[in-house]
Amino acid sequence: MEQQEQVLLREDRADGVTVLTLNRPAQFNSLSLEVLGALQAALDDIAGDAAVRVVVVAGAGKAFCAGHDLREMRAHPEKAFMQQLFKAMAKVCTTLQRLPQPVIARVHGVATAAGCQLVAACDLAVAADVARFGTSGINVGLFCTSPGVALSRNVGRKAALEMLLTGGLIDAPTALREGLVNRVVPEDRLNEEVAALAAAIVAKSPLAVAMGKRAFYEQLEMGVEAAYQLAGETMACNMMAADAAEGIDAFTEKRPPVWRGD
Amino acid sequence: MEQQEQVLLREDRADGVTVLTLNRPAQFNSLSLEVLGALQAALDDIAGDAAVRVVVVAGAGKAFCAGHDLREMRAHPEKAFMQQLFKAMAKVCTTLQRLPQPVIARVHGVATAAGCQLVAACDLAVAADVARFGTSGINVGLFCTSPGVALSRNVGRKAALEMLLTGGLIDAPTALREGLVNRVVPEDRLNEEVAALAAAIVAKSPLAVAMGKRAFYEQLEMGVEAAYQLAGETMACNMMAADAAEGIDAFTEKRPPVWRGD
Amino acid sequence: MEQQEQVLLREDRADGVTVLTLNRPAQFNSLSLEVLGALQAALDDIAGDAAVRVVVVAGAGKAFCAGHDLREMRAHPEKAFMQQLFKAMAKVCTTLQRLPQPVIARVHGVATAAGCQLVAACDLAVAADVARFGTSGINVGLFCTSPGVALSRNVGRKAALEMLLTGGLIDAPTALREGLVNRVVPEDRLNEEVAALAAAIVAKSPLAVAMGKRAFYEQLEMGVEAAYQLAGETMACNMMAADAAEGIDAFTEKRPPVWRGD
Repeated sequence: MEQQEQVLLREDRADGVTVLTLNRPAQFNSLSLEVLGALQAALDDIAGDAAVRVVVVAGAGKAFCAGHDLREMRAHPEKAFMQQLFKAMAKVCTTLQRLPQPVIARVHGVATAAGCQLVAACDLAVAADVARFGTSGINVGLFCTSPGVALSRNVGRKAALEMLLTGGLIDAPTALREGLVNRVVPEDRLNEEVAALAAAIVAKSPLAVAMGKRAFYEQLEMGVEAAYQLAGETMACNMMAADAAEGIDAFTEKRPPVWRGD
Repeated sequence: MEQQEQVLLREDRADGVTVLTLNRPAQFNSLSLEVLGALQAALDDIAGDAAVRVVVVAGAGKAFCAGHDLREMRAHPEKAFMQQLFKAMAKVCTTLQRLPQPVIARVHGVATAAGCQLVAACDLAVAADVARFGTSGINVGLFCTSPGVALSRNVGRKAALEMLLTGGLIDAPTALREGLVNRVVPEDRLNEEVAALAAAIVAKSPLAVAMGKRAFYEQLEMGVEAAYQLAGETMACNMMAADAAEGIDAFTEKRPPVWRGD
Repeated sequence: MEQQEQVLLREDRADGVTVLTLNRPAQFNSLSLEVLGALQAALDDIAGDAAVRVVVVAGAGKAFCAGHDLREMRAHPEKAFMQQLFKAMAKVCTTLQRLPQPVIARVHGVATAAGCQLVAACDLAVAADVARFGTSGINVGLFCTSPGVALSRNVGRKAALEMLLTGGLIDAPTALREGLVNRVVPEDRLNEEVAALAAAIVAKSPLAVAMGKRAFYEQLEMGVEAAYQLAGETMACNMMAADAAEGIDAFTEKRPPVWRGD
């Protein structure tokens, strides 16, 4: 446990924002199996922690995240290890989607391969203007197929294929234009911008946020009719909650709402 | 019926364009169950009306549409009413897609929550530069899950989630960049631009437009092979129509085509 | 065979790039059944040709490709011919996706109807700034339903519908913004840019490229969990290949990799 706390830092702020910081700066925060285990454990814990309202994923040092740990992969060349590694990464990404709380990637530097996958798998992303993004596995003979799953659900397929096939990096404005990140700001305003986005979400009913986030990803994989059916039922349930009544009453009465979270 | 004509105005123009105007300006054209009933009835009627070639959905007064009627919702807090309301809205949206005629949203002002859903559910949208868009339900404790169904089928998922989670408004240029609207023009040129877009479609074979629109939405929900199979069969049927023969002959003979509509 | 070589030129370059050039300039490279047959035969041959690493699809003369051959279609008005024609075009498009080698469309001029479909169906596309794109079938009474299959998998649905319903052309910068092409360059730099993009891919492991491209299109049609499962298994297999070991070792040792292709 001691060791896990080292490769991943968790800071629970008083304002309801929890920051998870990948903390292997000398390895460009590469996602070893240990890091993935720590990330999974932290997310599993956060899922049941009502005090956490928004999660921020960040990286220590110069890079955001350079993907999997190539040295570790070469040290464990057996297929079973690879399957375990890619399964662990996929589980982290699907856990991010299933987490009741929204997750913001804070991308201050390079995000490549599984690091780019991590950005794509977060609900939202804010990047510094110096950040760059790539699915560079193809440069070492390993096509970034898993990062491509997340990437192709954020950007158009031609843009995704160009990144996957060339292994080249795109800059932050390009990532913004293509839909991989929500906002790009000068490096010295990154914390401020992430905090503002997080605060806008913390101000909302956590019940409505959690119900809505879950249904959002579910409906994305449905045909439009089934999607509307799920959505309508979700909204009807949401309306039965005290928070919706309070929210509408507060709006009508021109006063700030007081969420109960149910 | 008298009352329904009041909340929704229908103007059948001589040029084949029918304008449906949400007409509760004092309520920012909010979509009460009565409005949705009137909209559904109008669309059902239009579906069988060969004289209507393009439908424009507009709003009276300052706003385009502010979503559902919050006062009505609070006055009917039972779950059955909510289910009925969201089902009615979903039906309007799927009816817009199934309508043989293309539908253009004419967005002159704010379009929020179900109002934003309406824009997203139309085939095309033209916005004034002062228009703004948002899925603001989360501000009152009600996540815009149903608007999210339409929105996420127009824009990338990170952009959609930012709107859904923050409840913030985006301006018209942003809506254009993200794919929620087709064109943005100065306010005083909005009618002109909508008319030009509508006229371009009225000039086409109504048979080909109807066949193509239907197949377009069907193939969107299919894998690529099934999509091509449906599309190829649709085009072969389209080629059997008199309009296709006339269109190709007119093109070859460098004269304007005369559509028969079959 | 003599005739097929005339309507489609194949140039196998020493650098691993094969250029297929539609060669009916007087007919704006329209895709007659003969051209489609030649294209299919060439792709089927290339699929098994390890010397080919990247395919470029180009057009001779002024246009890139004006779609199907309207004269041929009018000369064979029977439905069976139409079904055969659209099936042949669909097969070319799905073959492009299944081809182990990446395919780049080199778009120097107008690409309309099935010509636009061809661009959309390629993995990547580079356009000259003077190129234009459209799904113009609706102008002759034939909705571009099949081109719409490919188009709507490249660009947002409102942009796709505007092209399909109005039959209008978009310019190259618009095509870039909407995701239909990867890069736009001045006409006199088109060959250079296509060559640079091709070279970046030729430099990669052909095994990794082929595995990755196949999995990319397969996962696109899956839900996110199934997609990650396929992707993880694909990457584990990819890691078992000699090329991945060589790639990672070369990266670690700061030397260029030498691909064996297995």
